[in-house]
Amino acid sequence: MTGTVYLVGSGPGDPDLMTVKARRLIEEADVILHDKLPGPAILDQLPADAREDVGKRAGGERTSQEHTNRRMVELAREGKSVVRLKGGDPFVFGRGGEEAEYLAAHDVPFEVVPGVTSAVAGPGVSGIPLTHREHTSSVSFVTGHEDPTKDESAVDWEALAATGGTIVVLMGVGKLPAYTQALLDAGLAADTPVALVERATWPDQRVACGTLETAVDVRDREEIEPPALTIIGTVAATRERVFDYLRNSTQEVHQ
Amino acid sequence: MTGTVYLVGSGPGDPDLMTVKARRLIEEADVILHDKLPGPAILDQLPADAREDVGKRAGGERTSQEHTNRRMVELAREGKSVVRLKGGDPFVFGRGGEEAEYLAAHDVPFEVVPGVTSAVAGPGVSGIPLTHREHTSSVSFVTGHEDPTKDESAVDWEALAATGGTIVVLMGVGKLPAYTQALLDAGLAADTPVALVERATWPDQRVACGTLETAVDVRDREEIEPPALTIIGTVAATRERVFDYLRNSTQEVHQ
Repeated sequence: MTGTVYLVGSGPGDPDLMTVKARRLIEEADVILHDKLPGPAILDQLPADAREDVGKRAGGERTSQEHTNRRMVELAREGKSVVRLKGGDPFVFGRGGEEAEYLAAHDVPFEVVPGVTSAVAGPGVSGIPLTHREHTSSVSFVTGHEDPTKDESAVDWEALAATGGTIVVLMGVGKLPAYTQALLDAGLAADTPVALVERATWPDQRVACGTLETAVDVRDREEIEPPALTIIGTVAATRERVFDYLRNSTQEVHQ
Repeated sequence: MTGTVYLVGSGPGDPDLMTVKARRLIEEADVILHDKLPGPAILDQLPADAREDVGKRAGGERTSQEHTNRRMVELAREGKSVVRLKGGDPFVFGRGGEEAEYLAAHDVPFEVVPGVTSAVAGPGVSGIPLTHREHTSSVSFVTGHEDPTKDESAVDWEALAATGGTIVVLMGVGKLPAYTQALLDAGLAADTPVALVERATWPDQRVACGTLETAVDVRDREEIEPPALTIIGTVAATRERVFDYLRNSTQEVHQ
């Protein structure tokens, strides 16, 4: 009997923001295939006899996606119950789609267990609503870290600017200068509020605020490093209005 | 001592997809202010002595947002620990931003507890990745049900089409004819895959698939009713490729 593979989102990093189902599946799994993305707080809680790191580097080389794919199939064919644990949600910039297709192509049954993506949780715990009835009717999630084999940016920043909605850039630290400039060129106002959220929901989360014009300086001054999100839009200014009453367990950097 | 208000996302409807923190806060709260949006499975589990329905209708009139706001402040000032339970995530089309601003303006401390939004979970359990390295580098969430006091659509469908990314429309059943036409007019291909997910993650979830051209017919034939999501983009076709191996506890309608 082939076992089932569970493509499980571990949420943004705070173990309290895992789903009830993710926690149960982790406890019951024969094997948990994970990389570093779930973050230290969650990885430390994984049962030692079930975890297998498929993200570790051997000789400086990251274990390939192909290796992860093969391990999932191999273990399922041994009849194992396999949790493939992924940071955030498995289907939001997580390559879960590719893994699902690989499993189906190899006759392995699978289930998808959604998780809280950091793109939602980071703004949330920072006091930034992604949408607001008065300001914005849409929110777009986009990756700042594209497939390096692509020749040019597949992201149409001009179109994103034209939506008028909130923009959340995941993995957006390195290319911040390029896309803030692209959004300014596309006509977004220089004083459009921007918030940078480093290690969203982790115990050492940091938040730094600025504008489309100052965001790069803010990043450099505060030494914001990956993993971090960039939130662009009028909603980002909400944080300042609510900050004095916003409670959470994270450390804050405030402009 | 003023109590704290927790703006808590209850997730998409399956109680197993609540976060560990949401479940704990519900158990510990003095009062849980809720409406119908968390769905029957979650509402049935709320402690009877703590729940207060702020979404019920009196004389056909929905209890106003203003009433909910006042109750949160009133209860917190009595020193109560208050959970304001919201469907999905509180800051994704949930008016949580307005509630946070109201609380701050009334000197009430609050915490935001992110949840799994149905806009992520619905596609996930239906076998539809929101992003895919080979197809799309962005995903946009947009509401199909705008503030009725607005004169015209605040959603720029042309810009959304131009992003080239996946589009997820929440509350998108009623206006499906209008926005599928708007997207066709904006140049999206008539055979762009579309999936409709009714009551995402609820025990009676249904999924129906078509294209931008056939979506309205599919909706009518399958009698898809609110609450439902519309997923528009090449990723929607992934479902067909993985469907035979996709496991979950929900009922399926397949084109």
